[in-house]
Amino acid sequence: MNIIKFYQYICNELELDYFITVIPKMVVMETMYETLLKMPLFQGLGEDEITKIVGKVKLHFQKYKAGSVILRSGDPCNELTFLLKGEIMLESTDKDNNFVLKEFQSAPDLVGFYSLFGIKTCYFSTYTAETDVDVVSIDKSFILTELDKHDIFRLNFRNILSNRLQQFHDRLWQFTYSCLETKIVDFLLARCEKPYGKKQLKIKMEDFAAIIGETRLSVSKCLNQLEKDGLVILRRTEVEIPDLNLLKLWKEKFLMTFSHNKEIVNE
Amino acid sequence: MNIIKFYQYICNELELDYFITVIPKMVVMETMYETLLKMPLFQGLGEDEITKIVGKVKLHFQKYKAGSVILRSGDPCNELTFLLKGEIMLESTDKDNNFVLKEFQSAPDLVGFYSLFGIKTCYFSTYTAETDVDVVSIDKSFILTELDKHDIFRLNFRNILSNRLQQFHDRLWQFTYSCLETKIVDFLLARCEKPYGKKQLKIKMEDFAAIIGETRLSVSKCLNQLEKDGLVILRRTEVEIPDLNLLKLWKEKFLMTFSHNKEIVNE
Repeated sequence: MNIIKFYQYICNELELDYFITVIPKMVVMETMYETLLKMPLFQGLGEDEITKIVGKVKLHFQKYKAGSVILRSGDPCNELTFLLKGEIMLESTDKDNNFVLKEFQSAPDLVGFYSLFGIKTCYFSTYTAETDVDVVSIDKSFILTELDKHDIFRLNFRNILSNRLQQFHDRLWQFTYSCLETKIVDFLLARCEKPYGKKQLKIKMEDFAAIIGETRLSVSKCLNQLEKDGLVILRRTEVEIPDLNLLKLWKEKFLMTFSHNKEIVNE
Repeated sequence: MNIIKFYQYICNELELDYFITVIPKMVVMETMYETLLKMPLFQGLGEDEITKIVGKVKLHFQKYKAGSVILRSGDPCNELTFLLKGEIMLESTDKDNNFVLKEFQSAPDLVGFYSLFGIKTCYFSTYTAETDVDVVSIDKSFILTELDKHDIFRLNFRNILSNRLQQFHDRLWQFTYSCLETKIVDFLLARCEKPYGKKQLKIKMEDFAAIIGETRLSVSKCLNQLEKDGLVILRRTEVEIPDLNLLKLWKEKFLMTFSHNKEIVNE
């Protein structure tokens, strides 16, 4: 068969090292590259433009083992980072060090992109590889000199920034304080980058109670009920939320019942 | 004198109409134009670039009498609007129609710019001329075809979007619920575009109490104390805040005393 002959030929012609390191690396890079081009930031770019971009922009492909830090809170954001494969953990701390919020983000996604421009160009969260991950980054200088030349890239980037801005605006407007249950959900919704997925909140029960302006006992009771309903998992100084979206839906249902009951009382 | 001769000459050569309408209009446009170019979005553009832009982009200069609506909530945002002179009022309503929040914005400033791109391209607020105002708008199509060709414009716009995004992110993280006083301030800070300046909140006291999860009586007491301190002015179904920044500073001072007292109690 021709394919066998082809391999016999290249086996004779090429070093063994080529098969062990170079080809696998090429295959990996090719896959990473395909994922990259499927991301919203590049959607709509023609093959010509992509070829032009790749010819001029240096892409830093990197692999991180589970547990290693990818980007650190407070470090300057000088590159645009794409999560291509695997899952990462975002760790954010409030300014008084009362709590640590952990979020989990899956590929493909942009990482910390809103620190690239504007006044605050340092990462707000620390990003750690939760599983083994593939990441690619592009230096800010290439964004300015090369990528920005492409109308579609510019428009995509501006749309992504505007979308996030509109999401944050909506959240600020949707804030309620009406009761303990919704305060717990809103506390999380205000601070999480994504309003869905697994979250872990490392906090002392008395600090949590103080932050949301309730007693330690009532917060504890409420969280225990939420645990019974399968919406949170309680550990020592930690509340895990398996999926924030489920908790959000629960809040909406709760508010509906709440206002319904209020109407009955008022009648 | 030469200047008199010059005016005699043009008086003879030109129609009277020219002096009554054309020249004043030219002077007004020139002033508006100068203000426009001083705005952050155009900062750093060279004279050459500005001349190029003005040659290709149609600028809609408009004057509005006090009281007239400039842009309406829900209308599609198809233009970038600059407030060049005067003061406008932003009117925003929550989705349940429980309250109306009025903010006052002074020239020079951008108006509703974060509705131009992204998914939600309708104005969130209604913008009304509070005094007589001068406004200029540029069609979205010119942004895409002409202004975007200039590196500095693109960078300025992206920086403005990123700054606002970072401000909103900070506000979401600074949210506290610890006590009644801070809740009132945070309620406003969450929803106001600018964290300073005069605001008017049209709301029934019982709705306000329900939204921030307090009793009608305690909210009323607190607002009366704030009025005595000169931070708010109470009217029927309206709370006026002469300057939100003063209320914000008061909140910070209040929180410091609050945590100081807590420490004394804990000792």
